[in-house]
Amino acid sequence: MREIINKYPRLLHGGDYNPEQWLDSPQVLEEDIRLMKETRVNCVSLGIFSWARLEPEEGEFHFGWIRRIIDKLYENGIYTILATPTGAMPNWMTAKYEEVRQMSPEGVRNLPGRRHNFCYTSPIMRKKMKKINHELSRHLGDHPGVILWHISNEYGGNGSDASCHCPQCQQAFREWLKEKYKTLDNLNHAWWTAFWSHTYTDWSQIHSPVPNGESRLHGLNLDWKRFVSHQIQDFCMEEIRAVLKYSVLPVTTNMMEYFKPLDYFRFAPQLSIISWDNYPEWHSQKDEVNVAVRTAAWHSMMRSLKKAPFLMMESTPSIVNWKAVNTQKRPGLHELSSLQAVACGSNSVQYFQWRKSRGSSEKFHGAVVDHRNGSNTRVFREVSALGSRMEQISDTIYPTCNRPKAAIVFDWENWWAVEDIEGPRKDMAYQDTILAHFKPFWEMGIDVDFVNEDCDLQGYRLVAAPLNYLYKKGYAKKVKDYVEAGGCYVATYFSGVVDETDLCILDRHPLEELLGIRTEEMDAAPDHRVNSIGFEGKSYKTGCLREISHVIPGEGAEVLASYESDYYAGCPALTRKSYGSGRAYYLACETEEAFLKALYAGLAEENGIGTEFTGRLPYGVTVSHREGGQDLWFVQNFNEAETQMELPGTYARVEDGMELKGSITLKPFECLILAAK
Amino acid sequence: MREIINKYPRLLHGGDYNPEQWLDSPQVLEEDIRLMKETRVNCVSLGIFSWARLEPEEGEFHFGWIRRIIDKLYENGIYTILATPTGAMPNWMTAKYEEVRQMSPEGVRNLPGRRHNFCYTSPIMRKKMKKINHELSRHLGDHPGVILWHISNEYGGNGSDASCHCPQCQQAFREWLKEKYKTLDNLNHAWWTAFWSHTYTDWSQIHSPVPNGESRLHGLNLDWKRFVSHQIQDFCMEEIRAVLKYSVLPVTTNMMEYFKPLDYFRFAPQLSIISWDNYPEWHSQKDEVNVAVRTAAWHSMMRSLKKAPFLMMESTPSIVNWKAVNTQKRPGLHELSSLQAVACGSNSVQYFQWRKSRGSSEKFHGAVVDHRNGSNTRVFREVSALGSRMEQISDTIYPTCNRPKAAIVFDWENWWAVEDIEGPRKDMAYQDTILAHFKPFWEMGIDVDFVNEDCDLQGYRLVAAPLNYLYKKGYAKKVKDYVEAGGCYVATYFSGVVDETDLCILDRHPLEELLGIRTEEMDAAPDHRVNSIGFEGKSYKTGCLREISHVIPGEGAEVLASYESDYYAGCPALTRKSYGSGRAYYLACETEEAFLKALYAGLAEENGIGTEFTGRLPYGVTVSHREGGQDLWFVQNFNEAETQMELPGTYARVEDGMELKGSITLKPFECLILAAK
Amino acid sequence: MREIINKYPRLLHGGDYNPEQWLDSPQVLEEDIRLMKETRVNCVSLGIFSWARLEPEEGEFHFGWIRRIIDKLYENGIYTILATPTGAMPNWMTAKYEEVRQMSPEGVRNLPGRRHNFCYTSPIMRKKMKKINHELSRHLGDHPGVILWHISNEYGGNGSDASCHCPQCQQAFREWLKEKYKTLDNLNHAWWTAFWSHTYTDWSQIHSPVPNGESRLHGLNLDWKRFVSHQIQDFCMEEIRAVLKYSVLPVTTNMMEYFKPLDYFRFAPQLSIISWDNYPEWHSQKDEVNVAVRTAAWHSMMRSLKKAPFLMMESTPSIVNWKAVNTQKRPGLHELSSLQAVACGSNSVQYFQWRKSRGSSEKFHGAVVDHRNGSNTRVFREVSALGSRMEQISDTIYPTCNRPKAAIVFDWENWWAVEDIEGPRKDMAYQDTILAHFKPFWEMGIDVDFVNEDCDLQGYRLVAAPLNYLYKKGYAKKVKDYVEAGGCYVATYFSGVVDETDLCILDRHPLEELLGIRTEEMDAAPDHRVNSIGFEGKSYKTGCLREISHVIPGEGAEVLASYESDYYAGCPALTRKSYGSGRAYYLACETEEAFLKALYAGLAEENGIGTEFTGRLPYGVTVSHREGGQDLWFVQNFNEAETQMELPGTYARVEDGMELKGSITLKPFECLILAAK
Repeated sequence: MREIINKYPRLLHGGDYNPEQWLDSPQVLEEDIRLMKETRVNCVSLGIFSWARLEPEEGEFHFGWIRRIIDKLYENGIYTILATPTGAMPNWMTAKYEEVRQMSPEGVRNLPGRRHNFCYTSPIMRKKMKKINHELSRHLGDHPGVILWHISNEYGGNGSDASCHCPQCQQAFREWLKEKYKTLDNLNHAWWTAFWSHTYTDWSQIHSPVPNGESRLHGLNLDWKRFVSHQIQDFCMEEIRAVLKYSVLPVTTNMMEYFKPLDYFRFAPQLSIISWDNYPEWHSQKDEVNVAVRTAAWHSMMRSLKKAPFLMMESTPSIVNWKAVNTQKRPGLHELSSLQAVACGSNSVQYFQWRKSRGSSEKFHGAVVDHRNGSNTRVFREVSALGSRMEQISDTIYPTCNRPKAAIVFDWENWWAVEDIEGPRKDMAYQDTILAHFKPFWEMGIDVDFVNEDCDLQGYRLVAAPLNYLYKKGYAKKVKDYVEAGGCYVATYFSGVVDETDLCILDRHPLEELLGIRTEEMDAAPDHRVNSIGFEGKSYKTGCLREISHVIPGEGAEVLASYESDYYAGCPALTRKSYGSGRAYYLACETEEAFLKALYAGLAEENGIGTEFTGRLPYGVTVSHREGGQDLWFVQNFNEAETQMELPGTYARVEDGMELKGSITLKPFECLILAAK
Repeated sequence: MREIINKYPRLLHGGDYNPEQWLDSPQVLEEDIRLMKETRVNCVSLGIFSWARLEPEEGEFHFGWIRRIIDKLYENGIYTILATPTGAMPNWMTAKYEEVRQMSPEGVRNLPGRRHNFCYTSPIMRKKMKKINHELSRHLGDHPGVILWHISNEYGGNGSDASCHCPQCQQAFREWLKEKYKTLDNLNHAWWTAFWSHTYTDWSQIHSPVPNGESRLHGLNLDWKRFVSHQIQDFCMEEIRAVLKYSVLPVTTNMMEYFKPLDYFRFAPQLSIISWDNYPEWHSQKDEVNVAVRTAAWHSMMRSLKKAPFLMMESTPSIVNWKAVNTQKRPGLHELSSLQAVACGSNSVQYFQWRKSRGSSEKFHGAVVDHRNGSNTRVFREVSALGSRMEQISDTIYPTCNRPKAAIVFDWENWWAVEDIEGPRKDMAYQDTILAHFKPFWEMGIDVDFVNEDCDLQGYRLVAAPLNYLYKKGYAKKVKDYVEAGGCYVATYFSGVVDETDLCILDRHPLEELLGIRTEEMDAAPDHRVNSIGFEGKSYKTGCLREISHVIPGEGAEVLASYESDYYAGCPALTRKSYGSGRAYYLACETEEAFLKALYAGLAEENGIGTEFTGRLPYGVTVSHREGGQDLWFVQNFNEAETQMELPGTYARVEDGMELKGSITLKPFECLILAAK
Repeated sequence: MREIINKYPRLLHGGDYNPEQWLDSPQVLEEDIRLMKETRVNCVSLGIFSWARLEPEEGEFHFGWIRRIIDKLYENGIYTILATPTGAMPNWMTAKYEEVRQMSPEGVRNLPGRRHNFCYTSPIMRKKMKKINHELSRHLGDHPGVILWHISNEYGGNGSDASCHCPQCQQAFREWLKEKYKTLDNLNHAWWTAFWSHTYTDWSQIHSPVPNGESRLHGLNLDWKRFVSHQIQDFCMEEIRAVLKYSVLPVTTNMMEYFKPLDYFRFAPQLSIISWDNYPEWHSQKDEVNVAVRTAAWHSMMRSLKKAPFLMMESTPSIVNWKAVNTQKRPGLHELSSLQAVACGSNSVQYFQWRKSRGSSEKFHGAVVDHRNGSNTRVFREVSALGSRMEQISDTIYPTCNRPKAAIVFDWENWWAVEDIEGPRKDMAYQDTILAHFKPFWEMGIDVDFVNEDCDLQGYRLVAAPLNYLYKKGYAKKVKDYVEAGGCYVATYFSGVVDETDLCILDRHPLEELLGIRTEEMDAAPDHRVNSIGFEGKSYKTGCLREISHVIPGEGAEVLASYESDYYAGCPALTRKSYGSGRAYYLACETEEAFLKALYAGLAEENGIGTEFTGRLPYGVTVSHREGGQDLWFVQNFNEAETQMELPGTYARVEDGMELKGSITLKPFECLILAAK
């Protein structure tokens, strides 16, 4: 693996550190260093939200305090990830320059306060950002203790949809549209404005979608989402250029799950390494399996963005403070949850936060160091134990990464479009659909990548594209080429419905030739109208969305499953067609979990993507596979109970080389790391 | 029956047609004509939402394209209902003239976009509307293919309550109030403003009810609702005058169910024929009965508004796109649902929409022609079959109409007032109460009219007035005269409480003499305090609202049912008093369905309003009766299963004259049309 | 007892009277006098909401009409409580002076209308208030029939949180902060603004907490709540000074339950007597116990504010009109509910309202006199019977009051802070927690006072402080002194977490020495993670909040109860430590009701605070104890059924001296008033 962070090429352990809150308590800062060493913390993030300390009045910069802290950390073997401070604006700026504050869809300018609330278009904000970033870079960009730039913080995380509707954003949006469509005729056609007399006759008539204006022109909605993502990405790029003016360090920005407003696939190329903030809702359900699956999917997305290891930049060592009920992680779960990240490709376990703040809104968010009790807490002890273990495994793990043979299509533009539709049902739940298709792989211990429609599909043996409503230009051809060359492709209901501008694709489905089927209606059924499909001798319940399709005679599609009742009884629910050297599947309806499990078990076998663990994993246990230096298996037990399993071979435990084979007992929430022998 | 549409006096089959979306695809327009003929479409609605095509820039009019389409349709035997285009405003207008856009209760002017969003008071909007309507009428008002004016579209359908709170509306409201009350003293008394020191001392102090201002002065609330309905009606009248300047065609406007903001009884006189848009939620419940009842009630309202046949101007051939779950109509239900309209008095089956639009917000709303598959769809085949059947029955059906002997009072002003009350409970659910009283008639196969308090009651043998809270001036006397002359009247709990200005009527109930009872308290009971009433040897559960009344000694009321428990056990729940040649009933409380069924079965018999089918209809089956040319019975099976029934006589099937008698089997969702032999 | 209302030192019976609505109906006013005498009404409240009648145009005052009514009442033996009219502003004022209207958090100025909607800061409002109050006082402040000033009405009851966000309030807030913090450095430290770069560099940057500005700076939130309460209290004080300019009468203002925005403990000293408006939701649950407990707690709070009798200034004789379902009080409950007030220390039973208004928003709120039926209603009869009984008992009751030996800490500042926290769970439900601790006392027939953290604790044998999150300066020392001197103190989970500015108290719990325990984590558990504690041989379920603490070795705390499962099984759930002459308890978690019942039964016995009835009361029955002239017991049966009980001694019924002892039968909803023999 290419060394991204070449100053400190090891697993990182640490987290967000906010000494600016304690500058008048030097004994606290002393204690921090001591406790960090006790917990084997080797890296902290500094400067997030420090603008008011770094530039307390406009143009007056103070870097001494932060340099002294970086020095002290470095002297003690602790490296720094240095943040640009744009996550929150100082009061002097928001008071003086109104335009830096976001405007709501209702046209109301925000008052100062909170965070992540600046206008990404505002020239003044960009100017002030460049100035502070330049200064930061000039003063600290070559400090030997600084290893990575942390660009801003959780871009777009203003609690709503990240958008600003101010006049400057409106104007920038119009410019962006002009660049894209060239003429109003093109735009009017693309947005189908003849409907409801919405034809634009002047660029100035265009306004962002808002509740008290235009909100149901789906082409406009989609382009607005693209613009917002673009504008934030552009701001991020401008931040990066600013810090790189006096520095050659790698850059990252911390992402948030599948954050809907930002198309992270477009952010990835401009970053040196992907990082993200991981806050699963452990203990919120009767067991941890669904949360584990969802979290594994998030990690997999982060790894997929650059097909490379990433950093878990934030996680809580105990609880968060923003859930309805903030439950402590049970003993062992912190270590498992942290190593799950590593299992999926993370090269770090970083926390928000090192020390609980004394006041304000996150004072009850979990931290390594609490308000009371110093190092004498369960959390501190569990963090320390994990820190020691990470030191032990760092050399073995660092050179490796996961290399999946299967991929699921997850495309932000499709997401925006499919969840904005009116009909066939409300709440199309794209994420949940993706997860339903991801879970069978997790249960089989098969790592999966995510790709979007622009990615290369070659190299995967299986590609599934659930609820793939919007087909970008060239996508259908790419899929056909992929299958022709031997790939296996799974299409579902409500796919290939619209083109890039959300206009319905007329006459024929773009993959009609590939799939060999013709779809006639979509039936969205209420709960009381149950149906089922018969597949391999079993009956499986259908969900709400059910397409009614017909095999096109003579086109070669085989029916593998059919509806069992209602007026479309006998219509195909699952078909397969051989095409070139590959095969294309079509799934007509939502189904219960068990069907997808059966489907993908068959496809895994058919396409040879299973691992040696596939078929042997007990409920709640999964494996992830990092390859490279060595062949490593992370066996993760998400059961809150001891669990028996049969190993498929003989392995050495990475920490101590102990040989393991045959039947073993996993402790509650245990994560074993095994090397192939 | 008087011929309203004398250019084409037949059942209409067709729907909304939007060729302006396809002007650059002449092959689509060609295909439309071919497919229309295949489905026996004989009439389409044109021009709804075409303003931006008809007047692309201010003062620049284009009628050629639409004339060519009307010509082409007419050449192919297809007639046109021509719409005024005010349903949506073009962008040039909303951009140039701010005042045409509605203002929210919060005082925020809407941004351009959506539809139905213009200010009904704005002089500029009225001027622009008159201009386009004049031009439309002058150019196309005498085209031989145009048979009817479709004035605007779904007035008031802006998604909220149809109101605009702009300064011009405020001023118009004040003028309307001055006209009504003459002096502030009158207004202050009517609105009881001494309460909470709300006395107005200048007309300019009056403002529409808004959340951050006055919202609990119920007299103001009621007058504001009257004003909004009046203002829209006035706008409609101005549209009508504009199109009739150069045209002698009949006029209609498409209504929406019981649309609360518009008092359709006041609209009716200015229209030539009533039309409405019918979107029942089929398949949303475990069976179709309640939806069928609700839909029959809507149809009955439309027929009642002019006591004449009406047009179903819109309906979906398959699904809508705005429900939480948009379920396909099961085979047969489309035909039944369409003929239900005819059974209740409609002379048309029109669809929204002929062809699905390619983009924007309604692209997934059902249509006769889908994005793909041309005529090769189930929907297309079902529409075609219905079109053929309508051609067969048109001559027989057209001259007839329903002529009910029973009526239910449904009064918009009462609705506004009773659902605005504070106490005795939230959500007085006027519509649901009306439906509860309508359903027993539907189950007995008895057509019912709706009347408001201004209508003539003579001519009906039975009038029920559920939840008739507000008594207009003269209403009590009208009821007494009606009963005295032999009528049967049913009053319920919470009736006659207030006068026209929502002031409580003091001292005595206005119908005390007629009913012979005195009401002392209203008990609104929570769910856990069950009670029941005994009636004809059976016990029936009561609902939440329960009046505690006493028979006035010596006044002649008989107690037919009494409460069975709690502190008002023994108090009357149902009384009857003979008065003149008639009888007056008083129902003291909400009850379960079964009680109303028993009550109205008795009253139907007592008043001789049953039909030959009454008492013989299986669950889910009803009949409607159109009289005139012939005596026609529409036997409608809303069961999704074959259903046996016994015919009460010998009938001829209208389509082919086949004789039917005795026991017959109705197919799932079958509608038989029978002529008396 | 000190005579507060020395003009008429008796139990009051009457209520709000609004003759200004009926000035044009003199027969109504005549009838009122007659009916008041029939119901034994001896006191009414006049002038609430009369501003528009008293000053119909700016500077034009009309006092004749109200003087004539006071005269007439007085001639008939009916006294007047005279209100200042600021509860609602006249239209001439709101129209002319915009600044008198409140501004919403969104920065929108309210339109005229409703009530309780004036800006408490506005100089113009204060000037106009002073003028009308001066005039009122000058004209009527020495009328022999007027016995008490009723200052305004339900301060802060604008339906939201009582606050105004206008520029004048912002400025006043900043001045208030300057006075409090002196320097921005102090303020920045107290609010911990270094977090998220929120440091203020100029006073003008400070703004009230609003949704589109700063909303999560908890120190700001808390100070804003303090300011709002202060500003309203200051307005009230200014009203009081204005009426006392020409009058020496006592003053009160009618409070509302535990009205969250107003710290009633701070209002109390400036009032002569406490009064409040009591609207329990009788019949909303399966039985009346929880409503009775909640209501008893409210009454107890009112008595505690001045440790003296209070007035129940409003209550409904039947129903209110603002609940989802407004259920009639069952026979007997009105008398019980009214005497419950007296049992808890009220010297009045006053109603809202004497006569139902004819129009506007409260026309369906219950009243003694209804729109119809005159005196011939159940409600009128029950009110009359109660009036007679109150005349009988007045002399006996008046000199007495309750004198509890136990107190519960209820502190408004703690309330504001604990319900504004983010983490460990949403909705900390302070009121419900307080009630959970109050209920066991109610069930044992033990009166309890409420105290806040500023109150003297000496004099109570037991003090419980549930969920006491915020410790004011000096509070911890006061508690230690109290226990040392022999008191018994109960601390719970999540206590002593922050100081007065919501900054976490670092290092040690302020009562660590007193309690002898150390708390390590808070686990907020979802419903499916049940746990239990073992106490005195029984197992009790825990609630959501569970602290994990450890006894500090050698510090002397005994473990009385422990968790029974999960990773903190065995950790203490209840501890006790002797300290000086007293004892301190620590409760680690929320529990089911039964546990608190067992806990306080033991503590009542241990501390000798039980009464002779404790342990003998059947379900649904409680007693209250008024002492002074005689030793009086109010035995209250909240069961809607006859209930047997055993009297602990021999008593004389106050009304007639009848001797009662041994086993007796209470009628449904009966309230017996017994004197010790």
